[in-house]
Formats: sequence, C-alpha cells, structure tokens
Amino acid sequence: MKLKRSGRMVDLTGYLLHHPHQLIPLSYFVERYESAKSSISEDLAIIKEHFEQHGLGHVQTVPGAAGGVKYIPGIDQAEAEETVKELVELLEDPSRILPGGYLYVTDIIGNPRLVNQIGRLFASVFSSRKIDVVMTIATKGIPLAYAVATHLNVPVVVVRSNSRVTEGSTVSINYVSGSTKRIQTMALARRSIKQGSRVLIIDDFMKAGGTIKGMISLIEEFQAHIEGIGVLVEAQEVSERLVDDYVSIARLAQVNEKENRIEVEKGNYFLNGGQA
Amino acid sequence: MKLKRSGRMVDLTGYLLHHPHQLIPLSYFVERYESAKSSISEDLAIIKEHFEQHGLGHVQTVPGAAGGVKYIPGIDQAEAEETVKELVELLEDPSRILPGGYLYVTDIIGNPRLVNQIGRLFASVFSSRKIDVVMTIATKGIPLAYAVATHLNVPVVVVRSNSRVTEGSTVSINYVSGSTKRIQTMALARRSIKQGSRVLIIDDFMKAGGTIKGMISLIEEFQAHIEGIGVLVEAQEVSERLVDDYVSIARLAQVNEKENRIEVEKGNYFLNGGQA
Repeated sequence: MKLKRSGRMVDLTGYLLHHPHQLIPLSYFVERYESAKSSISEDLAIIKEHFEQHGLGHVQTVPGAAGGVKYIPGIDQAEAEETVKELVELLEDPSRILPGGYLYVTDIIGNPRLVNQIGRLFASVFSSRKIDVVMTIATKGIPLAYAVATHLNVPVVVVRSNSRVTEGSTVSINYVSGSTKRIQTMALARRSIKQGSRVLIIDDFMKAGGTIKGMISLIEEFQAHIEGIGVLVEAQEVSERLVDDYVSIARLAQVNEKENRIEVEKGNYFLNGGQA
Repeated sequence: MKLKRSGRMVDLTGYLLHHPHQLIPLSYFVERYESAKSSISEDLAIIKEHFEQHGLGHVQTVPGAAGGVKYIPGIDQAEAEETVKELVELLEDPSRILPGGYLYVTDIIGNPRLVNQIGRLFASVFSSRKIDVVMTIATKGIPLAYAVATHLNVPVVVVRSNSRVTEGSTVSINYVSGSTKRIQTMALARRSIKQGSRVLIIDDFMKAGGTIKGMISLIEEFQAHIEGIGVLVEAQEVSERLVDDYVSIARLAQVNEKENRIEVEKGNYFLNGGQA
C-alpha cells in the first residue's frame, strides 16, 4: 500500500498498538508503505513523541542491521491514578457485601474495559522485566492474566484445582491455604511451561498468600523462575503474609457486614514503580 | 493538548481502537485537540478511508446534535482467512492427540495474539446485532469470550458448574450433556444478567451442543434473549446436533488415534457473513 504521511500515521499507530513487545525491522514498513526509510523514521519520531507525552507507552528504536522498532505499552500517571480510583470506588459499594463478609466482584472482573486498563497497569510496571509466560489460577484470575499477557505479548497458563483429561499429563502439588489452613491441590499441564521460563503470576485476590505460594512451588517443579507477582486486590487484615514481593492495585482494609460498610485503599502499585 | 494533523492522526487512531462501539461526540475531540470541528472531520475522513480499505473496521459518523463517531472493529477477508488457516494448521498437529482421542489445545487458547484475532473474527460477524452481554462457561471459553467482548464493548458473564459463595445467590439448571447423556448442573450469579438482555454465547468447543443448549435454558431463566452463538471448534461426527444456528471457526473432521492423524476443516464462519 502506497501511503502518504497521514495514512502512514494511522497505519503505523494501529500496527504498533496491535504488536506490543515485538521488534519490527524498519524494512518491514519500508516495504509495507513503499516509502523511504527516512520518511518512516520521521513518522516513528512523531509517534514516539506523542506516545511518550500522552502516556500510551514507549517506542524504542534499535539501530543496526538487526534493529527495528518496538512498542512497550505503558500508562501515564494520571490515567493510572484514575483507574485505581475507579476500582477503589467500585469495590467500596456496600451492595457487594455477601453473607459471611464475602464480596461480589463478578461485575468488576466482567468489565473488559476495566480489565484491559488493569492489564495495562501491570504490563507497565513489569515491562522492564523479561517475562516468558503469565500464570494464573482458575477462574477469576483468567481475564486479568490475559489482559496483562496481551500487553506483554507472552502466553498464558492456567493452573487448575483438578486435572482434566484435555490437559494431558499434569504436574500437581499440594499446598496449604494460608487463611483456612486446609490442604488443597493445584495442577498444571506438563507441556505448558518450559524449563527455565520466567513466570509472572497474576491473580485477582490475595489474603495470606497460600495460593500464590502454591503457584511458586509449582513453578519450581517445572524448574522455572518467578519474575513477579501482581494481585488485583489484597486483604489487609492478615496475621502472617506468606508472600512479600508483590504488586497490588487495591487493598481491602475492612468489610463490616453489620454496619454495611467496605473500606478500600490503594494498593502498593505506586510504591512499586507503577508509572509510565 | 494542542495538536497538529500528524499528532491528531496518532491520537485519534489510538483513541478509536481503544474505544470500540462507543459513540463519541465530535465536540470531545474539538476540546481534546483544541482544533476546529472541520479539521477533526477531515482527520476522521482519512482514518475512515484507511480503516475501511485495510480491514481495521468501520468508522461510522452520526450527524446531528446527538451524533458523533463510532468505531466498529472488523477484519478484512485476507486476514480472516489467514487466521482461520493458522488455527486449522495448529489443530492438525498430531502431537495434540491425547489418550482417548482428546486433543491438547491449551497452548492455542493460551496465545493472546491468536485469541484476540479470533475475538476480532467473532466481533466482526456479530457487529451488526445488538449485543448486551457475552456469556461463556468456565474454563476454556473465558479468554475467547473476553476477546469478543472487548471488541464489542460489552460485559462478560461466566457460567460455572458449581455455585461459589462469592457469586451471591445463583440460578442453576440441570442439563443433559449431548454426547455423554449425563445430567450436569450449571449456575450463574442472579445479579449478573438483567431481564431482557441480548446475549451472545461464546465457547471453545461444541460436540452435540448439550452445554450450549443448557446455556440457552439458563438465558431463558433470566428472561433474557439469545442473539448469537459462536464456537471456536465444532466436532463434525455428531449423530444429532442440538443447536442449529451458530458460527464456527474450525471443524474437527476426524481424530485418528491409531494413525496419529487429525483432520480439521474450516468452520462455517465464511458462510455466515464472516467478512469485513
């Protein structure tokens, strides 16, 4: 397609947004647009400036024969704060309180726009680490894990509480739930993680951290490495936290069933380098 | 932000891609870019032409005081065919055959790039129907449902085989699995679907269609309506199909465990209006 600058700006922007964390040789665009390399470089400079000024992320240009351009999704401080604020306010709605002090969050997890924004938050904070795969546990962590993995351009593996015939041979471990102290099982298809992989764990909720500690043991069984942990909501009132180094978006301070009140704070996201 | 045309093209493209199926008043962009309405209209005309020529989707402009611009994601014929071909070839890999003739597809479902492309396929074919919510059943349908819902800008609800305390009160039904003839249960949180909602069902696999028929019964329990059905893979050898009107991306013709061979064909996607 022979394109003028305005057409190239539209196509380049769309192309980069759809191909995050991929090194694309400039020659690809030279052919695609039947344009000179110098024109493409100028286009990319404009896009880079705009993306970085307006918090869409970074555009890295790697010089040399093996070089090219790579888009690293990000989120600017204002949009990140707005997303965290939206989540905190949604969580504080007292109509979420269920019998036993549990919270209904199905509608929050069911909102793809919000889930994708949260994916951008995590992808942004973990963008400088080398991640090979995102791991989560069924069921509520799945949408969040895919949103993060989409922005990091890596696959997702889903740990389950039982092994299914469609998973082939599996590796399973027993772990102790941090809060209920019950012994539980989690399993993962043997062929889903390669030895030496660097794994990012994403989950929706962390109380004492027993489930995440279980996933860490499972990662060790695969002779893989844990590169980071991200949780949407952490519970504050925990006598002993089993996991230390994690990034949380929101913190559940208190659920008062009697007074019909939920207290939610920001998580540690902004203390952990959460910015564009 | 005061922007020149090239900056506006970058920002407008990114903004539209991130806000599908939303009517955005032109006045929003007039303020955002501190530019004249006529300039924005010209920008949008260029984007519209480019999107439509290159299969990124449609850009609708609605005139009048309540008007604006709306981006409808699409996929062009060539890219759609390429995606279906990629899926068919991946599925034909004989190393997928598991004992009992089951197929390992976890890596396909675990690839966010491919899942998002499949989301675009379904969003494109169902884009003219009025959809309020995408429904799927745990676990493998979840990533596909979110990919479709992201492009349609609607929420996702996940049906489960059991009711969890964190779902609040649920509606559950019994249904008969079409192939095994066993009675099973599925449940959905009562507050997750509003009466009168128009529901699109998305699932990863359909054999006789018993599970999807169950979801249709569940939709009726909520006094909601079924607007469409999309399945990633349908099995061909079925004595009696319980569901007729559906869109499939691939069709599993035969799994020959003895000869270590899998035969896969295109689904009915292109017969059901699957194009940009």
